[in-house]
Amino acid sequence: MEFSSKLIEKAVNEMSQLPGIGKRTALRLVLHLLKQPKEQTGFLAQAIVTMREDIKYCDSCHNISDSVLCEICSNKNRNHQIICVVEDIRDVMAIENTGQFRGIYHVLGGKISPIDGVGPSQLNITTLVQKVKSGSVNEIIFALSSTMEGDTTNFYIYKQIGDSEIIVSTIARGISVGDELEYADEVTLGRSILHRVPFEKSLKNN
Amino acid sequence: MEFSSKLIEKAVNEMSQLPGIGKRTALRLVLHLLKQPKEQTGFLAQAIVTMREDIKYCDSCHNISDSVLCEICSNKNRNHQIICVVEDIRDVMAIENTGQFRGIYHVLGGKISPIDGVGPSQLNITTLVQKVKSGSVNEIIFALSSTMEGDTTNFYIYKQIGDSEIIVSTIARGISVGDELEYADEVTLGRSILHRVPFEKSLKNN
Ligand SMILES: [Zn+2]
Ligand SMILES: [Zn+2]
Repeated sequence: MEFSSKLIEKAVNEMSQLPGIGKRTALRLVLHLLKQPKEQTGFLAQAIVTMREDIKYCDSCHNISDSVLCEICSNKNRNHQIICVVEDIRDVMAIENTGQFRGIYHVLGGKISPIDGVGPSQLNITTLVQKVKSGSVNEIIFALSSTMEGDTTNFYIYKQIGDSEIIVSTIARGISVGDELEYADEVTLGRSILHRVPFEKSLKNN
Repeated sequence: MEFSSKLIEKAVNEMSQLPGIGKRTALRLVLHLLKQPKEQTGFLAQAIVTMREDIKYCDSCHNISDSVLCEICSNKNRNHQIICVVEDIRDVMAIENTGQFRGIYHVLGGKISPIDGVGPSQLNITTLVQKVKSGSVNEIIFALSSTMEGDTTNFYIYKQIGDSEIIVSTIARGISVGDELEYADEVTLGRSILHRVPFEKSLKNN
């Protein structure tokens, strides 16, 4: 792409560093900003810089937080003996939205992925293992995405905490509620049969 | 969406003001910035603020430009008697890419759209009419998108310059080069028959 202005070119180039934003989309976004009052661009720039500079992570679960301990970790009504292990803040938000989980979280900050150069040391695994070994934990639930990276990460952590006498579970995989069986992929369908639950239990969950 | 951090919430809210960026996408972009070095967010913020503050428009054609006259308008090898009327800088870039046009442009900055509250006075129409009435123009080519707004804008300008003895044309609409006829929409196919060109001329253009 050849631009008639270096200012536009630079803004488009920076914008298109963002994942999923190509140069065309970046140009569309930049032209949008040009049609809006100058303040809007200022607000956007200020918000992302302040966020990036001042962001904090919960000392205990590593979730993004504005205080030393996040609201979930500092809530005494939650069960601190059950830890749900997730990849990032989006998973915490998704699970909190269900209203089904009253334990606490541990945010890894990613998954082990040799291709992307992410090893165990770049993730918040040590603090999780320490928590488990301290004896204050009853159960950990793996809630990583069901990919090779997710499975590798689960297994790595599982080995690290292997000696501890705690319950280790993973979230159930199966057919989405309301989905037609015939449209489900066969791996998911297979797992949903393998991990079938007692009928009375399924009634309670509805 | 409930966020565990006001900083994240604010950044997501500002990001999701951009067209086509929902809250989910905005959160993904923000989490990406958090994984990158702080400088990258700084560069992005700086680039968009500088662009918005210092942007200039060509005095003659209103295209985005870093100087008083854009490179096209200040190029004496181009035919200044043929003006191609376009909506924004993206159209200029697209037509320049074809290498088929050696005239100059006039960038309207949008289309007449009562629904979006865009009237003729918000577009760069007066300066175009002045150029035509000054007698220095031989032909204007409408290259707006073929929508109701585009057609309305074309017709409005056409009426404004009605008395002038210049050629007024629009770019040809038709089947894309290489496209199968059977997959074309019927309006386009209809126009391509209506606006058929002499066979010898079509050979020249290939
Ligand atoms: Zn926490
Ligand atoms: Zn110009």
